[in-house]
Amino acid sequence: MSFKVALCQMLVKSDKHENLNKAEKMIREAHQGGARMIALPEMFNCPYDSAVFRDYAEEADGETVQRMSAIAKELGIYLISGSIPEKADRIAPKSEGIPEESDRIAPKSEGIPEQSDIAIYNTCFVFDPKGHIIGKHRKVHLFDIAIKGGIQFKESSVLDRGNDITVVETEFCKIGIAICYDMRFPELIRLMSLKGAKLIIVPGAFNMTTGPAHWELTMKARALDNQVYFAAVSPARDMAASYHAYGHSGVVNPWGAISGQIDEKEGIVFTDIDLDYIEEIRQQLPLMIHRREDVYKLEGVEK
Amino acid sequence: MSFKVALCQMLVKSDKHENLNKAEKMIREAHQGGARMIALPEMFNCPYDSAVFRDYAEEADGETVQRMSAIAKELGIYLISGSIPEKADRIAPKSEGIPEESDRIAPKSEGIPEQSDIAIYNTCFVFDPKGHIIGKHRKVHLFDIAIKGGIQFKESSVLDRGNDITVVETEFCKIGIAICYDMRFPELIRLMSLKGAKLIIVPGAFNMTTGPAHWELTMKARALDNQVYFAAVSPARDMAASYHAYGHSGVVNPWGAISGQIDEKEGIVFTDIDLDYIEEIRQQLPLMIHRREDVYKLEGVEK
Repeated sequence: MSFKVALCQMLVKSDKHENLNKAEKMIREAHQGGARMIALPEMFNCPYDSAVFRDYAEEADGETVQRMSAIAKELGIYLISGSIPEKADRIAPKSEGIPEESDRIAPKSEGIPEQSDIAIYNTCFVFDPKGHIIGKHRKVHLFDIAIKGGIQFKESSVLDRGNDITVVETEFCKIGIAICYDMRFPELIRLMSLKGAKLIIVPGAFNMTTGPAHWELTMKARALDNQVYFAAVSPARDMAASYHAYGHSGVVNPWGAISGQIDEKEGIVFTDIDLDYIEEIRQQLPLMIHRREDVYKLEGVEK
Repeated sequence: MSFKVALCQMLVKSDKHENLNKAEKMIREAHQGGARMIALPEMFNCPYDSAVFRDYAEEADGETVQRMSAIAKELGIYLISGSIPEKADRIAPKSEGIPEESDRIAPKSEGIPEQSDIAIYNTCFVFDPKGHIIGKHRKVHLFDIAIKGGIQFKESSVLDRGNDITVVETEFCKIGIAICYDMRFPELIRLMSLKGAKLIIVPGAFNMTTGPAHWELTMKARALDNQVYFAAVSPARDMAASYHAYGHSGVVNPWGAISGQIDEKEGIVFTDIDLDYIEEIRQQLPLMIHRREDVYKLEGVEK
């Protein structure tokens, strides 16, 4: 059994409505091309710049979500709508020893009168072909990095962390959702695979320091180690923006080989996700069975 | 602080003494080249063929170990002596629920009168500059694979599994030791890194199916994800042997880039292991700190 996935590597601009219109246009084109599941990049309605995340942030019933829901329903597709800055009540970060009752309000903003209960998350909403939200992933690992002579970025100055491992049921297979920096953490992707995800979709925006060095390598490693399809969706590169996305959206198959990829320019990657091929690879090279759970134990931490 | 490591990609033949002589010759050459830590490939005293492992097997005080200990002492080097088929008392595989007292004799061979208590392991012995054994890794993940139109191999028909995560203290840094197929399991290498290993050394023998597809990719991913040096040492390719090793021994640095590699022929890879560079990378891209232990938990299973 196989189905077609499309990754929309769109050029994200500073005008939110222009971005929403562009997203809808590319989604229609992807649907025309036969895709049953369509993905957008990280921060597709907003420049990737922590200085503006707060200004572009919307609540979960905001305009962006409404428009994405409507187009998923109109076209009858699964839509992994990249990510947007989501405004929501702050949830305290999980931490052992904190009693559950105090988990609602984080202590972190005590003394700051404004916005103390409102957090911004980097959030991916997932829609089914009826336009219903069937999944929502809030970026778990925030991108705080300072490469000498290269990229500097500090998401945690504005964003809060999500706490969930997100696996969503679809009519084709389970899919795992992670966002950008999340993909660098093998434990997270492994746990999605152990929960039954056969396809991992990652809206992401690597840059010109980390992109050439690590983007493709990490995609391939996660696909190969977990014997799943691994799709990563970047914005197109905009040299006029403050953040230069690497682009190179693509899909890696469970043998670790690229089954579809684009360069840095705007465009759509179409790939068939062949679930039988996953089973074939797992039968020939039974990595998942050969794991030694009597030597190491990997588990999601229950809330 | 940095030190030189050498990987001896030797052509392994069917004559054990010829192999031991060759190993010693290459170790001397590596030492001449300034290496303070020298590694040999998987099954360096024996063809990589499960039909012969039993015939070449030695106990831990056998000729191979004695000769490797002597040369490590003579040259004053750390020697990661690849691996050999090791003959030893059978230890039951770890399994939850089995009381400790019954852990000595595996139930698996009941009814087979001969060899029921004697197992063969794929074992790496590690020697310090005084020739003492300071570490011993028995391959944890056995290589049972059946690729359509490609490689077929079943180690578990002859070998028993090791149960330990092996990290050894040296005067330079802690090193993690794994053997070949072990390197495909990210949990094992991650745990070595969490235990403080800065260099992972893996005697291995990928083949002409898995080698071109997965050898370099896996080395790079483990080095990058864990921000360590990752060295893998293969035998040279011998097209006259039943198993065609991929070769391509090499070292990947903590940024995921190759810092030394060879082709498929016999030869030595020299690389400097720069411990300061590890710290620099970890400071700039703090992956290890950004792990979310409140979302997932990875632990070694205590015996």
